[in-house]
Amino acid sequence: MKVDMIIAHAFVLTMEGKGVGMVENGAIAIKGDAIVAVGATDEIMANYQAERVMEARGKLVMPGLIDAHIHTGLSIFRGMAQDMSHWMQKGMWPLMKNATEDETLKGSLVTIIEAIKAGTTTFCDFDHGMNRIVQHYATVGARARVAQTVNELPDDIGNLSIGELYPLDATIGNAKLDASIRLFEEWHGQENGRITCLFGPQGADMLSTELLLEVKALALKYDTRIHMHVAQGDREINQMVQRYGKRSIPYLDELGYLDSRLMAVHLTEASKEETQLVAKRGASMIYCAGSIGIIDGLVPPIMDFLEAGGQAALGSDQAPGNNCNNMFNEMKFAAILNKVKRSDPKVFPAWLSLRLATIESAKAIGLEHEIGSLKKGKKADIIILNLEEPSLCPIYTDPIRNIVPNLVYSARGNEVETVLIDGQIIMENRKLITVDEKEAIRQAQAAANQISRRSQADIAAAESDVYKMMEEGYL
Amino acid sequence: MKVDMIIAHAFVLTMEGKGVGMVENGAIAIKGDAIVAVGATDEIMANYQAERVMEARGKLVMPGLIDAHIHTGLSIFRGMAQDMSHWMQKGMWPLMKNATEDETLKGSLVTIIEAIKAGTTTFCDFDHGMNRIVQHYATVGARARVAQTVNELPDDIGNLSIGELYPLDATIGNAKLDASIRLFEEWHGQENGRITCLFGPQGADMLSTELLLEVKALALKYDTRIHMHVAQGDREINQMVQRYGKRSIPYLDELGYLDSRLMAVHLTEASKEETQLVAKRGASMIYCAGSIGIIDGLVPPIMDFLEAGGQAALGSDQAPGNNCNNMFNEMKFAAILNKVKRSDPKVFPAWLSLRLATIESAKAIGLEHEIGSLKKGKKADIIILNLEEPSLCPIYTDPIRNIVPNLVYSARGNEVETVLIDGQIIMENRKLITVDEKEAIRQAQAAANQISRRSQADIAAAESDVYKMMEEGYL
Repeated sequence: MKVDMIIAHAFVLTMEGKGVGMVENGAIAIKGDAIVAVGATDEIMANYQAERVMEARGKLVMPGLIDAHIHTGLSIFRGMAQDMSHWMQKGMWPLMKNATEDETLKGSLVTIIEAIKAGTTTFCDFDHGMNRIVQHYATVGARARVAQTVNELPDDIGNLSIGELYPLDATIGNAKLDASIRLFEEWHGQENGRITCLFGPQGADMLSTELLLEVKALALKYDTRIHMHVAQGDREINQMVQRYGKRSIPYLDELGYLDSRLMAVHLTEASKEETQLVAKRGASMIYCAGSIGIIDGLVPPIMDFLEAGGQAALGSDQAPGNNCNNMFNEMKFAAILNKVKRSDPKVFPAWLSLRLATIESAKAIGLEHEIGSLKKGKKADIIILNLEEPSLCPIYTDPIRNIVPNLVYSARGNEVETVLIDGQIIMENRKLITVDEKEAIRQAQAAANQISRRSQADIAAAESDVYKMMEEGYL
Repeated sequence: MKVDMIIAHAFVLTMEGKGVGMVENGAIAIKGDAIVAVGATDEIMANYQAERVMEARGKLVMPGLIDAHIHTGLSIFRGMAQDMSHWMQKGMWPLMKNATEDETLKGSLVTIIEAIKAGTTTFCDFDHGMNRIVQHYATVGARARVAQTVNELPDDIGNLSIGELYPLDATIGNAKLDASIRLFEEWHGQENGRITCLFGPQGADMLSTELLLEVKALALKYDTRIHMHVAQGDREINQMVQRYGKRSIPYLDELGYLDSRLMAVHLTEASKEETQLVAKRGASMIYCAGSIGIIDGLVPPIMDFLEAGGQAALGSDQAPGNNCNNMFNEMKFAAILNKVKRSDPKVFPAWLSLRLATIESAKAIGLEHEIGSLKKGKKADIIILNLEEPSLCPIYTDPIRNIVPNLVYSARGNEVETVLIDGQIIMENRKLITVDEKEAIRQAQAAANQISRRSQADIAAAESDVYKMMEEGYL
């Protein structure tokens, strides 16, 4: 049979089966956007004739990584809010109120590039300006599962005092929901199906019960999922208790929100019982190890969730407060933070992190029929890493194989040499094909210069911990 | 004045003063092995004529990173021992007993390369085979402060049952101490002073009181420091209580060991009072965030130590159990693990991590007169990072500068483009000058193949958690 490409003589981490499904001296045959066959190199070479044979001796071939929760629309503020209290109000808000959508869009492209260069091929991106951000994914050629933020908050919400109950405005909410529907109708299934849309209510505290129920009805109507922050911080829980006399999870359960359509992000403030309830109801959990570690100094209850049989995935969240969008970072932090939380080095082994960034993540976001493992019929979303980088050297295969631990605990991201998405080469030998990296960085820098100029007074007025560090020479 | 090199138009992070000492549009003049001047580019260009002007617009120039505790002699076992209990006995020992010194030497060079490519310029390396490892530092041109391991343990120590009291053998101890003295006499001050030697008693549980006191006397005689694991695990504390009826720190205090000559590594099992005592006595603490997180699932009492006024530094420890030797990894883990330990995002800000890998580290290891900051008269150990990499983009300078948080929380290590040590260019535009990277990796792989072959039976017999993972398809 004729195929477009064979990648041969590689260590192939299929992520099939219960473990990592390693095939040594393996090969993959690709035709169009799909994987035609995975197996021993000899067998693949005998059965398929390829237009191009990519020699991958000394390399690792594996499914592209999935970032199950990312806000690329915040990337332009990278490094401006961490090591501080009141992250949102004193860190983010003075910048967000002074940035235009044109500007945040420039930052978005840079972190999409950053992430692809660290092997991310699927992005669950969540933002107000998704109707424009989504174009980046189309242009770059990445896979994206996008949500337009829905809330009922006025634009000047950041001016509220800390702890004050948010005003909810149905007119605002309806307008945002309309934008969300337009995004769905315009983009869902576009780009050979690479772009799919979810609904994105920001959090139970940020929109009315009525609107939440309307979102739920739409998710049913369009047969898609809901991507939502759930119990993401004490700020949210305080709002919920003030407004409804209930914590987020019992409230959402009463609304019938906790089911397999829900991708519940963070669960930082969920009690053990609440966490178990979310798992039991079949909602998935998106765990953002790096961002919650930096912004809150906390480790969400991912272990409780997994032990309750829940379906989970990892996400990198936002650049201002992580401060990278690199799934290798998330895999390592997920593993080590949970070892430390339980004071047990056996907790959260490398293979678990890897599954939560590939096949388990695909299940958690509802794309396991297309991605997450290397298998006949799935999309050719594939990354190739150079195992002859110092950080992955040496390779042992017998009687213990050390590739997975080194991938999770030692790889930086730059070991990823080549990225295929939907069968197309997006990066080869670390050179991006579909986007001009230098130009993207130049434009993001120009945008940041404008934001910097405009936000001076607001940043000074906020007197954040970061601003004080700057005054004292620590930055 | 004529100089050899000027690095111009850069963000210069001098690490002078109490913070990070940033000079925007700064320059450095270098002559021979030393920094002649640091200041505004205009001023430096007006006062010095350089043989070579290195243009560094859009780049960050900073002191080379210091790895205050590393065992490069274990690097050949990278990725073979993590996510497990009984790390030493079931993970390391079956490999160590089957490896030759020729083989471990090959691994050592690979992680030296790995570390240099992530900006490490000074290595406090600690190993049995230091008399040969030290040659790598001479060849590569890196700065090293090396210690030959001293203990009284027989070679087959790994065969003991878990918890059994170690036999101590004075003959073995004396031979190792002799080797340590030979190392000192042969290498201390060599290579233009880049190589200096410390004494390296492995831990209070691994040599007799008599030998410990002899080491101390030698450190005084040779006017150098003692690099030692202290309270590194419950294994050590159990040995100490069995043998002496005392925990490590009170025992060492009685011996007069806790003073400014001591670099105390880990303190994982030190109580708050013991930690404070070590700080009060003036010993420094070396904190290995990544390795202790992976191997023990613990966060050592670095915050208690710093709050007691102690002088601390970061170290990467060993590749089998971390699994990288990359100080960017250590800086990020130190910050986030301590935020989580205290449930407070303000704890361990980025600037603190950066100081503990540069100027504070230089003080902790006793080299602050030569390295750790960019200052007239200090050695030209300098790294240059490309700020136009996606992970460090965009740059803000006003009213908040985001370079330090992004350096600590977002950089992977590969942003380091150029490395100077002792005024010599060791890496330029990511190409190593003094060593053949591919050949080093090829030789390490060949060595690993031999170790793999020889250690099969012992690995299988140990029945470690990692071996079980392999059998079950998780690796």
